Amino acid sequence: MKQIKGNFVPQALNNTSSLPAVSASRPLRVALFGFGTVGSSVARILLESHPAGLELSHIFNRNVARKRVDWVPDSVVWTENAEDVLQASSSNGGPDVIVELAGGLDPAGNWVRTALANGKSVVTANKKLIAYHGLELEAQAAAQGLHLLYGAAVAGGIPVIPGLEHGLAGDRVDRVEGILNGTCNFILSKMQEGGDYAETLAEAQQLGYAEADPTEDVAGYDARAKLSILTRLALRAQIHPEEIPTRSITDVSAIDFSYARDLNCTVRQIARAGRIDGELAAVVGPMLVPLSSPLAWSRGTENMVVTTGHYGGDVVFSGHGAGGHPTAVAVVSDLVGLAQGSCRIALPSTPAKVSTELEVPHYIRFTVSDRPGIVAAIAGALARENINLNAILQRPGFPLDRLPFVITVEPCRTSALQRALKEIARLPALLEPPLDMQILEK
Amino acid sequence: MKQIKGNFVPQALNNTSSLPAVSASRPLRVALFGFGTVGSSVARILLESHPAGLELSHIFNRNVARKRVDWVPDSVVWTENAEDVLQASSSNGGPDVIVELAGGLDPAGNWVRTALANGKSVVTANKKLIAYHGLELEAQAAAQGLHLLYGAAVAGGIPVIPGLEHGLAGDRVDRVEGILNGTCNFILSKMQEGGDYAETLAEAQQLGYAEADPTEDVAGYDARAKLSILTRLALRAQIHPEEIPTRSITDVSAIDFSYARDLNCTVRQIARAGRIDGELAAVVGPMLVPLSSPLAWSRGTENMVVTTGHYGGDVVFSGHGAGGHPTAVAVVSDLVGLAQGSCRIALPSTPAKVSTELEVPHYIRFTVSDRPGIVAAIAGALARENINLNAILQRPGFPLDRLPFVITVEPCRTSALQRALKEIARLPALLEPPLDMQILEK
Ligand SMILES: NC(=O)c1ccc[n+]([C@@H]2O[C@H](COP(=O)([O-])OP(=O)(O)OC[C@H]3O[C@@H](n4cnc5c(N)ncnc54)[C@H](OP(=O)(O)O)[C@@H]3O)[C@@H](O)[C@H]2O)c1
Ligand SMILES: NC(=O)c1ccc[n+]([C@@H]2O[C@H](COP(=O)([O-])OP(=O)(O)OC[C@H]3O[C@@H](n4cnc5c(N)ncnc54)[C@H](OP(=O)(O)O)[C@@H]3O)[C@@H](O)[C@H]2O)c1
Repeated sequence: MKQIKGNFVPQALNNTSSLPAVSASRPLRVALFGFGTVGSSVARILLESHPAGLELSHIFNRNVARKRVDWVPDSVVWTENAEDVLQASSSNGGPDVIVELAGGLDPAGNWVRTALANGKSVVTANKKLIAYHGLELEAQAAAQGLHLLYGAAVAGGIPVIPGLEHGLAGDRVDRVEGILNGTCNFILSKMQEGGDYAETLAEAQQLGYAEADPTEDVAGYDARAKLSILTRLALRAQIHPEEIPTRSITDVSAIDFSYARDLNCTVRQIARAGRIDGELAAVVGPMLVPLSSPLAWSRGTENMVVTTGHYGGDVVFSGHGAGGHPTAVAVVSDLVGLAQGSCRIALPSTPAKVSTELEVPHYIRFTVSDRPGIVAAIAGALARENINLNAILQRPGFPLDRLPFVITVEPCRTSALQRALKEIARLPALLEPPLDMQILEK
Repeated sequence: MKQIKGNFVPQALNNTSSLPAVSASRPLRVALFGFGTVGSSVARILLESHPAGLELSHIFNRNVARKRVDWVPDSVVWTENAEDVLQASSSNGGPDVIVELAGGLDPAGNWVRTALANGKSVVTANKKLIAYHGLELEAQAAAQGLHLLYGAAVAGGIPVIPGLEHGLAGDRVDRVEGILNGTCNFILSKMQEGGDYAETLAEAQQLGYAEADPTEDVAGYDARAKLSILTRLALRAQIHPEEIPTRSITDVSAIDFSYARDLNCTVRQIARAGRIDGELAAVVGPMLVPLSSPLAWSRGTENMVVTTGHYGGDVVFSGHGAGGHPTAVAVVSDLVGLAQGSCRIALPSTPAKVSTELEVPHYIRFTVSDRPGIVAAIAGALARENINLNAILQRPGFPLDRLPFVITVEPCRTSALQRALKEIARLPALLEPPLDMQILEK
């Protein structure tokens, strides 16, 4: 970049890239890496909608023969040799852009590094790769004047990442809360209507909404990867996904929905992060959501993100967070941006440690073998940590030797509650460890 | 732009503007035109948050002396001479960017033209100017390699425009529906809780949510300007705002909320546009919204936009559509984009005529002097136009000589319904013209 001298016009204004960069040059050649759910949807949209300036040129997949479909024109090269595509010079028929849609850290990460090293920009939907290696890969891309776009990595087809980058760059976002995993939301919103966990999980698997091994989703690993990306873009804080305390939804049962209802709440898997007294707090797990909150409106596999800005207040985004076509919309939108010479807005971020110390109200369900004395013992343990009881809920109709009841407590420090629950867990009347969920405030 | 030859790298990929363009050059100098609600909020954010690469340099307003505030540093030039600022060369301390926040078509339009003619990019929140002259001004900006950004012009602080441009460019949006006017939403959501129109309007005026002359808002002119902008960006169709059939909310009364409730609906001012059988339909006015629709969740001055994509399905955006700070967030986000050498995605659009012929269900309220025979007469008029009656609702407790009752009809063509209503209006028992509202489908 030049020095400022005399009649200098700032580079930003000298840049004519809002004119479609493609009009006078050939289209960008696009190579898909991975022809599964999202990859084939991206091919569909590219071939049906013909967005200006983009040409599908290569499809790479292992054992590619079984992937061939008749609706892809003959001009497209099908291959199972990744290196060939990554090394092929774009001046020699090679692709200009690699669209990584295989998933996982390896070999996807190496493809992306090799693509960038060979002068090819990259679009990906791979939240895991971006959560773990996004910073490093963005730096590699920027150092070479290339682009790494991943609008599909969080909330699929909902433009949360573009919204944060282009629409909220001028705010100071203090908090982000979201429903980031469609599988968990499907299961929990079905349970709200009366299903039980195992049945609903089986239904989700049958409908293709949950994997045979649902751990990644129900344990919260998928959501925490996405939350770490949102935390960087919204709160400008770099955190490692594995530092985010994550609780599985598997312990939530039908009875929790009844008690939640009594509290004018429902239960959802929530991913939330915020700056509290200069500390960065982040957490993923099932939580009580007030029925009056937009987060309680989400049904089925829907995703939703609520950002809270210092200047602009709450902004809600919702829609289809997953599925081949919605996710492909975000991928193709990134490609259209590339074709037009667009660029992401660089939102500066700094490394942060995740604080586990929150001060929020909690819902705690106890399952006990008999009632007399137990409430006093629990209340005593809480009182010793200065935790104020808010409500005690007990529905009729349960056997006295296996009695679930609920205590809600006023906002208290996580560490204090954990000490109290540890003491409570030692009470002989307790049949299983207490289930503790945060309650979102209205 | 160069011809493709030999080792050609497409321009789009050769563009390094994702690196903050500001890092090696001086900040962009920003001149505010208009220091009212939004203008002063933009100044606040620029001075409090110091977004990289931006410097507030000028504030222009008529009779500027009374606008001075002590929190703006001395380096900023206050002026009431627009031409001086617009003509000042940026190599000579003049601004690089004009932020137009005065509003209206004149003189705002001329400032924008002069700014562009003098090599200055423009950011504006002026929906009216963009609705009426956006295409022409964009062409002027593009022809000079400059930028015209207006992310704040629709739905204030909610990133609907950035979302459409950067996140949904890859979809084919078939429909857009929204609550685009905070004043109307405040009035109607208060009426839903039992207020009457005149009282609620007075309250809105007292709270600063409605102007002394509320016509622009309640008659739907503000919403139709915004709808015409959304129609261009989402549906890629250029329509003139004055071609959009627009109905005022002033005829909606408490009784309509009771009847709507019986139909599991509420009433909102809705702006909607869609492609139906190749025709472009658009309309603004009070409509019945099912309580299950996200559009019914909006409260107070909130705005909401729902887009329906062929590939990605429904996406919902909601938040603060107005107010100085939220609107300023969108303005500053556009400025951050400019400072980083970013650009908008050009979404190609073509001229379209607005079809007034929709086929949707309707709610029609009649106020009659006596009941016998009137239903038969109305039903007959509808039947002659092949319009099917759906429900007849009549609440008890009204005087027989001034009886409001409601008929809902199945989806029917607008022209047919209008013919029938014209005939019905001639019935002597009718005390006032029927109030007809579209019913949104779930
Ligand atoms: N599906 C969604 O709704 C969604 C939403 C947002 C983001 N994403 C992300 O998008 C990416 C793709 O997801 P998807 O649902 O499309 O997955 P998918 O259906 O499993 O497709 C992945 C494709 O990549 C191929 N592949 C995987 N590993 C490979 C390797 N080592 N070498 C060659 N080919 C390989 C697979 O081939 P085989 O058939 O041989 O396995 C398959 O065709 C993932 O990062 C995912 O997290 C998906
Ligand atoms: N307020 C919102 O919530 C909102 C939301 C979205 C978009 N917008 C748009 O943002 C723009 C500004 O709105 P606003 O609410 O900030 O309006 P405002 O409070 O009335 O401010 C407008 C400012 O511009 C000045 N001005 C107007 N005409 C002028 C002229 N001919 N010459 C010199 N100065 C002039 C006014 O000066 P005086 O004090 O002398 O009148 C006033 O200071 C409008 O286009 C509006 O549609 C506003």
